[in-house]
Amino acid sequence: MAKKNSGNSNNPNGAKNQNAPKLKIIPLGGLQEVGKNITVLEYEDDIIVLDCGLAFPDDDMLGVDLVIPDTSYLEKNIDKIRGIVLTHGHEDHIGALPYVLGSINVPVYGTRLTLGILRNKLEEHKLEKKTKTTIVKDGETIKLGCFSIEFIHVNHSIPDSVSFAITTPVGVVIFTGDFKIDLTPVNSVMINLTRFGEYGKNGVLALMCDSTNAERPGTTRSERQVKNSLNVIFREHANKRIAIATFSSNVHRIQSIISVASEYKRKVAITGRSMLNIIGVAIELGYLKVPEGILIDINEMKKYNPEQIAVITTGSQGEPMSALHRMAFSDHDKISLGADDVVVISANPIPGNERTVGRIINELSKKGVHVLHDAVAEVHVSGHACQEELKLIHGLVKPRFFIPVHGEQRHLKAHAKLAEYMGAKPENILIPDVGKIIELDKNSIKFNGTAPSGKILVDGFGVGDVGNIVLRDRRHLAQDGLIVVVAAIDIEDGLLISGPDIVSRGFVYVRESEELMEQTRITARDAINYCFDSGTNEWNAIKTRVRDDLSKFLYQKTKRKPMVLPIIMDV
Amino acid sequence: MAKKNSGNSNNPNGAKNQNAPKLKIIPLGGLQEVGKNITVLEYEDDIIVLDCGLAFPDDDMLGVDLVIPDTSYLEKNIDKIRGIVLTHGHEDHIGALPYVLGSINVPVYGTRLTLGILRNKLEEHKLEKKTKTTIVKDGETIKLGCFSIEFIHVNHSIPDSVSFAITTPVGVVIFTGDFKIDLTPVNSVMINLTRFGEYGKNGVLALMCDSTNAERPGTTRSERQVKNSLNVIFREHANKRIAIATFSSNVHRIQSIISVASEYKRKVAITGRSMLNIIGVAIELGYLKVPEGILIDINEMKKYNPEQIAVITTGSQGEPMSALHRMAFSDHDKISLGADDVVVISANPIPGNERTVGRIINELSKKGVHVLHDAVAEVHVSGHACQEELKLIHGLVKPRFFIPVHGEQRHLKAHAKLAEYMGAKPENILIPDVGKIIELDKNSIKFNGTAPSGKILVDGFGVGDVGNIVLRDRRHLAQDGLIVVVAAIDIEDGLLISGPDIVSRGFVYVRESEELMEQTRITARDAINYCFDSGTNEWNAIKTRVRDDLSKFLYQKTKRKPMVLPIIMDV
Repeated sequence: MAKKNSGNSNNPNGAKNQNAPKLKIIPLGGLQEVGKNITVLEYEDDIIVLDCGLAFPDDDMLGVDLVIPDTSYLEKNIDKIRGIVLTHGHEDHIGALPYVLGSINVPVYGTRLTLGILRNKLEEHKLEKKTKTTIVKDGETIKLGCFSIEFIHVNHSIPDSVSFAITTPVGVVIFTGDFKIDLTPVNSVMINLTRFGEYGKNGVLALMCDSTNAERPGTTRSERQVKNSLNVIFREHANKRIAIATFSSNVHRIQSIISVASEYKRKVAITGRSMLNIIGVAIELGYLKVPEGILIDINEMKKYNPEQIAVITTGSQGEPMSALHRMAFSDHDKISLGADDVVVISANPIPGNERTVGRIINELSKKGVHVLHDAVAEVHVSGHACQEELKLIHGLVKPRFFIPVHGEQRHLKAHAKLAEYMGAKPENILIPDVGKIIELDKNSIKFNGTAPSGKILVDGFGVGDVGNIVLRDRRHLAQDGLIVVVAAIDIEDGLLISGPDIVSRGFVYVRESEELMEQTRITARDAINYCFDSGTNEWNAIKTRVRDDLSKFLYQKTKRKPMVLPIIMDV
Repeated sequence: MAKKNSGNSNNPNGAKNQNAPKLKIIPLGGLQEVGKNITVLEYEDDIIVLDCGLAFPDDDMLGVDLVIPDTSYLEKNIDKIRGIVLTHGHEDHIGALPYVLGSINVPVYGTRLTLGILRNKLEEHKLEKKTKTTIVKDGETIKLGCFSIEFIHVNHSIPDSVSFAITTPVGVVIFTGDFKIDLTPVNSVMINLTRFGEYGKNGVLALMCDSTNAERPGTTRSERQVKNSLNVIFREHANKRIAIATFSSNVHRIQSIISVASEYKRKVAITGRSMLNIIGVAIELGYLKVPEGILIDINEMKKYNPEQIAVITTGSQGEPMSALHRMAFSDHDKISLGADDVVVISANPIPGNERTVGRIINELSKKGVHVLHDAVAEVHVSGHACQEELKLIHGLVKPRFFIPVHGEQRHLKAHAKLAEYMGAKPENILIPDVGKIIELDKNSIKFNGTAPSGKILVDGFGVGDVGNIVLRDRRHLAQDGLIVVVAAIDIEDGLLISGPDIVSRGFVYVRESEELMEQTRITARDAINYCFDSGTNEWNAIKTRVRDDLSKFLYQKTKRKPMVLPIIMDV
């Protein structure tokens, strides 16, 4: 970790700087985690927010739909906020906006496709009329308070992605967002390396750079290579239907599929809600070039032979409700797959999804489908820069201070090491963390204080009403189930009036465990009677005794610890 | 899938063969799944069982500890069973024995290390005295009923692994078990390819071959390469403590660590129960060569400087109770890690464990530990043969019939494709499935009938008492929690005497949802009163009404579906 360069604070200039206002960088998400990207820049009375994404729940967040950042710091400082600027249209960069804009209604700036995708979301949440959005083209600069923000074109797995060059009163901060360097992108142009170089030439105070692939040596392959692989697949499987699953937001990939299908004179059908949504937006805004007449409705498929069709589908991560999942498990009402089909999974499983993707591959294989996936064919490339690309950016930007962002600790650390390798002084590198405020001026970088931050869990309509206690109970119930003990007592006279009865769920198959259930009942009865016999007629004491005795008894018998819920009514 | 070669049944020999007894191969596990390997060979009155392993639960088997095969087919045919033969000592090949031997007490045959590891397990289950075990060396042949079984030495990630060449009345069946071809193994010799070749030369009826890596091109790297990497790591980090996590059963790997540590004059401390167990067995049986005085008790570590110590630990899969996990989360009572430590995770995450392993890497990185894992260093090699090795085995054995085993459908299919590439006729390849009986004679292979098979879930002491209903309830509770409605009624007079009260767990944070809870209570009260008002005084009808009304109300309000448990007492 960097220390403040103490040399500076000893000279008069340093002393003066200490009282001068500083730039605060406050990450509210996206660090030590994947997703939920949101970073706040604050200088005196001006705040800008970079991205506002969601994260998908960890596997121990049972029943949780999604996770959004705690933005109470922004609510408290709402008067300072000049706007939210977006790097690109992925969920982990824009997905929390519909939840956050309700309480923080500030202008939103982004490129055309980013705002097109956002518009769909805002409509779902009935926020499209209340929200002021402004399209910014790459190359343009906007002024928000004391900040000037230039949008710089970069390559990524969604079109219209940009980095920000933010001119602040203390210097220029380059914030890359997610990016890669693609020398031969599909339907797009190469990242604007020149602008990175020009800023570098003029002096950059701090670089905040994508760390996702900082552990990976070499260079990320070009999107063009996937197109080449698709070409080979279409040629080799000329007599079969070809269905391709990919991320709906990967418009370049979808363009490649449509172009290759067109070359091979196939019609293209689309399935999956998010795929239909985003393709709709991309066509409307001109990001997809679709030859006339090539797209057909899925209901028209039956008019064609398998070899005349290509299908684009969701489900590349094995998501249980996705179109591909439904096809694999014979649950799709329009498409059934078999020996006449090739399925291409044009994506890598995101860590944690390997098993669900594997299950789909197995199910499809059982049906006789020929499955091509990243382990057996070059059907996917990453959207993030590997080490050699990162080195190039460091070499062009030559920042005074470096802050690795977008990644878990392992990635941030690997990126810090890479920066050192590129000549950065260790004391000029700061590995950030969510909620830890970074203070920056021309000569120094350091942590100073914290801002409220954290994970807000969204479950159904509930935002923030599921927390640690609820999750702990869900995990307990998931692990060993539940035993409810029901009894009616007359607490005054110390009499058991009715019960105890035992109701269990998720504990044991009751019909085959009658003896255990009966012993459990007797243990509960004995516990209640023991209380009465020993003069205990305090309601809570009786409940505690029943819970403890049952837990002990059941653990002895089964080595399990179900949740024991004593329902003791005084009637 | 293969069809019976109808040409054969038309000639007189074929007709005769149809009535002649056939060899039955009955897989009771290990197919379309990873783990739980068990295969039955049956010819008239003789049965042998190959391996008897366990599987780890899928992520939807909440609370389940492990999975063992349904062996009711064996219980029914117990008089025929001549013995259980084991290929090697991994859990997925021997782990179910302690559960199965209780009801099927037959002799067990295996190599010395395999039975040494089994002995530990049998002692834990108090079965060691009841079980007859016989050590067989590789190169030896045992006779069990009509079967002769030669144990052939192979390479794998545990020493003393063997393939079986099983001479049956209809011909020779080669059953590889798990294997790789390692030309430069550590402390062992190369797989006995000559014996495979000799059997091939004399004619092999069927090959049953490991499919785990059948999707992977090329050759699995040698265990020697890991030793070389360790050497580099010890040289480069000469001034730090080095802790290495690996599978406790990978005795060769542990040998490499001890040898390299010894070269660099370090003492070796061991932590983790299974690591201590298996290292104990391996030393006792002579599978580990440990220089005098190099092993120290973990309590002695404080006498040494960090650079004088190497630690061998469990936890390479991120298991929550493992030593490495405890070290990462500062919960280990003997070792605390920091900037003076290098941790090497000498293993690949098994699919499904990526996130837990990732979490450990991040925690260690936060502590300043330098972490080396398979993504950044060559610190692990697989124990299974890749495509080029499989081709070599096919080329040597030249079987008439081929049955891919050990793997999910995707792996079995890839292996079948490889066999075709090596010249096998498609009709001579059978992709097996658990419980589907394969019938085999000199001229034909086909499916004929099924045997009972499946997954028996072990949860605590319970074996088989957790099934689909219990799991369904656990999943429901895990997803949205529980609402219990408690009321006392006088059903005769149609009176609500007490309640309804609402108890919730894992649904919503109650203190912040008082209004919702009160509305829920009112909904329940209205449902009960509605029943009484409309003359319904049937207990089940009241419960159903309460459940339905509450479910509907709660879904409307929260978009969640907690389990609703009405506890209505008639008092």
